[in-house]
Amino acid sequence: MLSSDSFLEGVHFLADVHPTRAVGYKALARATSDLAAMGAQPRFFMLNLALPASRTGRWMDGLLAGMASAARRFGMVLIGGDTSQYPSIVMSITVGGVADVGHILTRSGARPGDGIYVSGTLGAAQCGLELFLRSRSAKRNATFVRPHLYPRIPIELGRRLTGTDARARIASAAIDTSDGLSTDLSHICRASGVCARIFAEKIPCVNLPPRLQYGGFDPLKLALHGGEDYQILFTAKGPVESRDAGLKVTRIGEILPRRHGECRGALIEIVHRSGRTARLAPRGWDSFRKKQ
Amino acid sequence: MLSSDSFLEGVHFLADVHPTRAVGYKALARATSDLAAMGAQPRFFMLNLALPASRTGRWMDGLLAGMASAARRFGMVLIGGDTSQYPSIVMSITVGGVADVGHILTRSGARPGDGIYVSGTLGAAQCGLELFLRSRSAKRNATFVRPHLYPRIPIELGRRLTGTDARARIASAAIDTSDGLSTDLSHICRASGVCARIFAEKIPCVNLPPRLQYGGFDPLKLALHGGEDYQILFTAKGPVESRDAGLKVTRIGEILPRRHGECRGALIEIVHRSGRTARLAPRGWDSFRKKQ
Repeated sequence: MLSSDSFLEGVHFLADVHPTRAVGYKALARATSDLAAMGAQPRFFMLNLALPASRTGRWMDGLLAGMASAARRFGMVLIGGDTSQYPSIVMSITVGGVADVGHILTRSGARPGDGIYVSGTLGAAQCGLELFLRSRSAKRNATFVRPHLYPRIPIELGRRLTGTDARARIASAAIDTSDGLSTDLSHICRASGVCARIFAEKIPCVNLPPRLQYGGFDPLKLALHGGEDYQILFTAKGPVESRDAGLKVTRIGEILPRRHGECRGALIEIVHRSGRTARLAPRGWDSFRKKQ
Repeated sequence: MLSSDSFLEGVHFLADVHPTRAVGYKALARATSDLAAMGAQPRFFMLNLALPASRTGRWMDGLLAGMASAARRFGMVLIGGDTSQYPSIVMSITVGGVADVGHILTRSGARPGDGIYVSGTLGAAQCGLELFLRSRSAKRNATFVRPHLYPRIPIELGRRLTGTDARARIASAAIDTSDGLSTDLSHICRASGVCARIFAEKIPCVNLPPRLQYGGFDPLKLALHGGEDYQILFTAKGPVESRDAGLKVTRIGEILPRRHGECRGALIEIVHRSGRTARLAPRGWDSFRKKQ
């Protein structure tokens, strides 16, 4: 199984702001996250790297060290690629992994009545990004900044969700939360031809200390629209317990038929704590959306 | 078998000068050429495309049409990738193909005594690039400009060179002439731990009409250092006839042992028509070389 992702200076990282090792680590983590959400075991990667000559010394060494540390963690080896000179730093990473035949998770298997689940917590990476850009320190607010710089990838969870010859398949559809819950769930809805209802109070939002909540951070907004958490968002017919998944998973809603009246023209509806129901537009990451 | 290549605006193409379809065609051809020189049958590709929003309409349609026409010619299908917004156009293409187990051509198999061969003619693409940049017309000097814009890839030759279960292997090492003969042959020499001697009069140089020779074009220089011909440069123990290869191939020299006195400190020596022997430095394409 193969997947391929771009990692671009000024879009996905800031070369003079982000620690070089974190850029390398995250470039590979981001690409590998796609494999994890398909239920594959990562094995190898290829790197196409274009960069200015001035970045080929220490900067590139740091980048490759960070990438090597991610590769060790995920159990991958570098098998090829190329290097070019270019005015800005642009990377493309192709990752390959293996899965049992017939045990691959896609976005298109969600069916009405399935539960909607997500692993871990949501919103920490977006909060970490904003805190890191303010302080430019990897040590301050490390609880949030670390998931932004060095995200963990739930590879083992993906393997369990897809099932093996010995164990039953758990998930009907899956995606990694790279763009943000509202956008990633809409991808599943579109690919599966269904709608979704989620409950605000069920969403495992990042737990913010009061000083940050006063500082303008809204845990629910971060969880709904913040990207780069690299958790797995999945649907399943039967109930799923964290002990089956080997990692904390939370049921946040359910899949509805596409023509269900309550969809109200949007693919996702959200039930707030007050009981009020609203449409949820995809407002996560989209590099082509016009700035507002 | 997988290979991955960058294709970058301002390095590999000029977005406002090159025909859009040619950019798409050549991006895929360039990546596929690596597979051909490994003896693989191309099967699929993935495209990571980053570009400004202003290029997402007609320009991108033309790009994809050119890529689709290359994919049809080479027998490949698009299986994935991603699209991002970026200030310049950067592409990364990962291609995959199949080869019989144990029948893969590498750069490292050349041995002293092997003959050095190249398919087709060399220098047309570099000549075409320079003519095209002067005239900005794809129709004028089409004999030369066409190989620059729409290079043919000798996939069938690569398959024959590597042999099959039914047919003996022909080549001991191979590479595609993407960077220029002097650079690509030095890659084989370095990977195989050998030196090489080539004969100027044997090189199948592009055949230029007198008006272009007066115009400052030197067929031998174009053939030695011009890149992007996407022919296959290979070494073989036994003699190779064009009829075995299914395509015109020319013996241009021989492989020498690394410590052969005649290497004179360089990896390649060239014997000129006059009988004079000189070192041949790699002066083909290298995006990191300082401008002279």
